[in-house]
Amino acid sequence: MQIYIPRILLIGVGLIGGSFALAMKKQAAAGHIVGVDREQAALKRALELGIIDEIAVNFAAAVRDADLIVVAAPVAQTAAIFTSILPHLHEKTVITDVGSTKVDVVAAARKVLGAKSAQFVPAHPIAGREMNGPDAALSTLLIGKNVVVTKLAENSSVAVACVEAAWRACGAQLHFLTPEEHDSVFASVSHLPHLLAYALVADIAQKPHAARLFQYAASGFRDFTRIAGSSPEMWRDITLANRDALLIELDSYTAQLSQLRQCILDDNAPAIESIYRIAQNARHDWISAIERAEKPGTTGGD
Amino acid sequence: MQIYIPRILLIGVGLIGGSFALAMKKQAAAGHIVGVDREQAALKRALELGIIDEIAVNFAAAVRDADLIVVAAPVAQTAAIFTSILPHLHEKTVITDVGSTKVDVVAAARKVLGAKSAQFVPAHPIAGREMNGPDAALSTLLIGKNVVVTKLAENSSVAVACVEAAWRACGAQLHFLTPEEHDSVFASVSHLPHLLAYALVADIAQKPHAARLFQYAASGFRDFTRIAGSSPEMWRDITLANRDALLIELDSYTAQLSQLRQCILDDNAPAIESIYRIAQNARHDWISAIERAEKPGTTGGD
Repeated sequence: MQIYIPRILLIGVGLIGGSFALAMKKQAAAGHIVGVDREQAALKRALELGIIDEIAVNFAAAVRDADLIVVAAPVAQTAAIFTSILPHLHEKTVITDVGSTKVDVVAAARKVLGAKSAQFVPAHPIAGREMNGPDAALSTLLIGKNVVVTKLAENSSVAVACVEAAWRACGAQLHFLTPEEHDSVFASVSHLPHLLAYALVADIAQKPHAARLFQYAASGFRDFTRIAGSSPEMWRDITLANRDALLIELDSYTAQLSQLRQCILDDNAPAIESIYRIAQNARHDWISAIERAEKPGTTGGD
Repeated sequence: MQIYIPRILLIGVGLIGGSFALAMKKQAAAGHIVGVDREQAALKRALELGIIDEIAVNFAAAVRDADLIVVAAPVAQTAAIFTSILPHLHEKTVITDVGSTKVDVVAAARKVLGAKSAQFVPAHPIAGREMNGPDAALSTLLIGKNVVVTKLAENSSVAVACVEAAWRACGAQLHFLTPEEHDSVFASVSHLPHLLAYALVADIAQKPHAARLFQYAASGFRDFTRIAGSSPEMWRDITLANRDALLIELDSYTAQLSQLRQCILDDNAPAIESIYRIAQNARHDWISAIERAEKPGTTGGD
């Protein structure tokens, strides 16, 4: 389905929101894009970069006139944003978001929007860069990337079709999970690794001989800790927004560490090698699957 | 000091040993290089690639005639290698190694070689690639890389000078730590991260819904787990060879994780952000320092 959305309200004009807007414009899938952001400098920059056509001067009117509202702000602000939208929300307006957690966002939507949560189709684009803000936005960022849509039982088919078509227009591959499945999956493969990387660097940084330790850190350490360079504010919010699923994954991981610790104490070389080999094989299979999927000409068919 | 070593015996012709040999030849710092390896195929390939000039046919003679012996085999084999060398070791021959752990290697040297441990100057080049074996060896691998030399009290100044000059001829930057300092530093910035990455991938791989989890893993996960693609055998050996230092670091890290877990339970957003920020800042400073050091023209001076 080719889509054309006359008026979009973009709440948050940073990396993800900006990349969505640029892609929609490039595909001629969007008409007029109005921007809102808590940072005026970001709004001005987004206007200069052609991410938005207009900085919202009248928020109420911008909400009322929008065909699609994209909430691309840190997840902890979602409830406040829904509260500000609600009084002006037209019944035909569709809402989507880009939050890294979904259970809390859906709960906020249902609590704040009530029956109008039917208009909200949650989404999570799996894309990022080390840079943030409008200057980091790229029209190509979402091409080939996974976007997880966590449809709600109350969503209208029209709202779902609009959101799916918009993300597809950006070049994304759509996947469908429940909000609970989504949060459990990302607790495991994204939120926990971030927490683990932050914890390692923080632990080292707080040692009295930290300077010497960093002096000898090499490329393996650099890659392992790259995600500890991410925004502390954003990841604080994700950590707390997804606390239940994250604690389950953290406890599972801690149990795996305890098992390895016991193997070391027992000088159990075969058990240590076995755990390492499970990991090496699983990672090898995963990388091979990614490379097959990325190879042009092998994903075709009919 | 420019160096020329007439005869080198290379025990282990893989990535590190091979790169050392290629660099020494390129700098005209080595005469004749004889190779020994537990794998005949690797020896033949090393000969084809010009890493070695000769496959050792008479191990006793090869040891006896060597000016420098480089032990570039997995650390768990060090004691056995010293035992095989000892009966044929000339008093003027110098020995170095490339092991990732040092306390155990030094203990093996003193136990097996006795007073002749004075001839053994331990070293650890901080360099690697994702590939292994002679085909992965590069004459440029060690250029600008750190090599930690853990001199022994009993080392002769001639032996130390020979080993230092050899690693410098390969283009490496030399650093000096005691074996205990070395093992503590690398437990922290290398061995623990490997264990943590293996544990994460193994934990996920053993879950019933592992396939779905890997399906959504993205670039952050890829970087975080890259070191879990390393050789299980080699890292099993390093884990056990450096168990005392590694357990100290693992327990420190586990305490940091427990603290974070409690912050999540307490919904303590400022404390979580503070830990994440310590990590982000420390990593940022570290990366900046690396980039300053790598920038041509800024490391000069007198």
